[in-house]
Amino acid sequence: MEKIIGIDIGGTKINFACVQRENIISEVISCKTPDTAEEILNSLCRGIFDLIEKYDAKGIGIATAGTVDLENSKVTGSTGNLPKGYEKLELKKVFTENFKLPVLIENDANAAAFAEFKAGNAKGHLNTLTVTLGTGIGGGIIVDGKLLKGKTGAAAEVGHIPMTYEKLRKCSCGSWDCWEAYASGTGYAINAKEIAQKIPPEKRQGILKNKVISELTTYDVIEGLKNNDFFSIKVHDVWEEYLSMGFASLINIFEPESIVLSGGMAKAVNYEALNSKIKERIVIAETKLIPAQFENNAGIIGAALLLLEKL
Amino acid sequence: MEKIIGIDIGGTKINFACVQRENIISEVISCKTPDTAEEILNSLCRGIFDLIEKYDAKGIGIATAGTVDLENSKVTGSTGNLPKGYEKLELKKVFTENFKLPVLIENDANAAAFAEFKAGNAKGHLNTLTVTLGTGIGGGIIVDGKLLKGKTGAAAEVGHIPMTYEKLRKCSCGSWDCWEAYASGTGYAINAKEIAQKIPPEKRQGILKNKVISELTTYDVIEGLKNNDFFSIKVHDVWEEYLSMGFASLINIFEPESIVLSGGMAKAVNYEALNSKIKERIVIAETKLIPAQFENNAGIIGAALLLLEKL
Repeated sequence: MEKIIGIDIGGTKINFACVQRENIISEVISCKTPDTAEEILNSLCRGIFDLIEKYDAKGIGIATAGTVDLENSKVTGSTGNLPKGYEKLELKKVFTENFKLPVLIENDANAAAFAEFKAGNAKGHLNTLTVTLGTGIGGGIIVDGKLLKGKTGAAAEVGHIPMTYEKLRKCSCGSWDCWEAYASGTGYAINAKEIAQKIPPEKRQGILKNKVISELTTYDVIEGLKNNDFFSIKVHDVWEEYLSMGFASLINIFEPESIVLSGGMAKAVNYEALNSKIKERIVIAETKLIPAQFENNAGIIGAALLLLEKL
Repeated sequence: MEKIIGIDIGGTKINFACVQRENIISEVISCKTPDTAEEILNSLCRGIFDLIEKYDAKGIGIATAGTVDLENSKVTGSTGNLPKGYEKLELKKVFTENFKLPVLIENDANAAAFAEFKAGNAKGHLNTLTVTLGTGIGGGIIVDGKLLKGKTGAAAEVGHIPMTYEKLRKCSCGSWDCWEAYASGTGYAINAKEIAQKIPPEKRQGILKNKVISELTTYDVIEGLKNNDFFSIKVHDVWEEYLSMGFASLINIFEPESIVLSGGMAKAVNYEALNSKIKERIVIAETKLIPAQFENNAGIIGAALLLLEKL
């Protein structure tokens, strides 16, 4: 099977590796994401050149933050914390010309979902979603064995399902009360602060004792769970209820064979408790929630597998 | 182009017609849905026999309430107000044997979405949804030109997106606070009653004057709109806000080219007001909401077109 260079471009770092089938056969080389679009292009070219030389790779698969066009050739927008001008880079064109190799670019959440579907814990599930619970909530959706891309490639924004009628909490996207605003790691901390504020200072016990509420973090609460802290249990339960709302929507809409949970906050999920909350909110048969297999390397592997499929 | 018998089986009536391309070329024959599964089968056989004789039709396409299996051969559940035992009928098997013609069965909301995509107001939109706003909320979803069916055929339950964290209103599905419980025709009337109850009796004006709140109907409010009744405008605005929540979810998830609105309540939609509410809640480019072309005959036409595609 051909060797492919897999690359994952995020807002804080860029990772490179050589992939064969679903296996990373090189070390994973990581560099801080440069501050300008031009430097990103230079870093990518150097990284690709080194790996091609060393492994005789036959293609380049790139997972990136942002929306990617339907032709898998370039980023078109929503690049968040990547530098200005990044969405103007003609990545496929430049790399094809420079390296004379096939190139494929895909959104990182989509690539991760494809990796889980093709070779991970959702292997063989023709209808499956991978939801990343981190600072935000991202998603990739497989329908009938293919990525759901939408009209221009911007589909699968599962983090932006509205949670309430009243406009109570602004989301990072500029809209109101998205799933991400309540059920991401960021949302978790806001939930915790809101719940804590409602407890009169003299009644604050456990992790809240002598705590400045505005300094309360998601980490504090997750730690509190280990000691059965009453407040932490409450906050966690509220979070799982919000999680259940979004997952119920996705299950009722897609009737998937599985939903794969990925990202830092996925590790805090009590699958049994969450599944039982979801069960109360769905109108169709139960869907398994399962942990991701690939986690940090999912983008690299998914992009490589997507390219392999096209070769 | 071949002639196809199109049939739509609902809880209150069964409609039959002969379809050529997307056109109904016969009268639409309608009968009350019988009370037992056996009588339904007999009615269907008689109706089909008559139409085949008269039009020399080359196939049978059936749209039905309930979930239909992936092979388009029989109903498997969720038949709501159809008689007990209906889901045990081997419709495709029976009709294939009796009439020696190809038979296809599809869920009615799916068939309607296919009709709009293939020949209606969403013609050529490879990613489009048709949402039926009636007593409940139903949906059919086209992804890359194909119906989204899910693991067993039960997907596209778009009426059951949760609207709120608190469990405030029971949905007909047994779950809590589904979109359908707030934004269907039934939900509209409940919203109206709840809003009215909060107004002190001595302050009730317009359509509320001397009205028994428990007798308030969706029809009353829609009528009130024509006279710019203040209470009616408020209820309608609340409804469109709830509508916008569900549509924003669907747009953020699917990035479709269009969403087609069908059903009795679709006629009450102010597209401009609704689109502007949705715009506030989406993170991707705007999606056109458009009225349906086929309405009552969408199931008949969609089932016929689905069969034609397979011939």
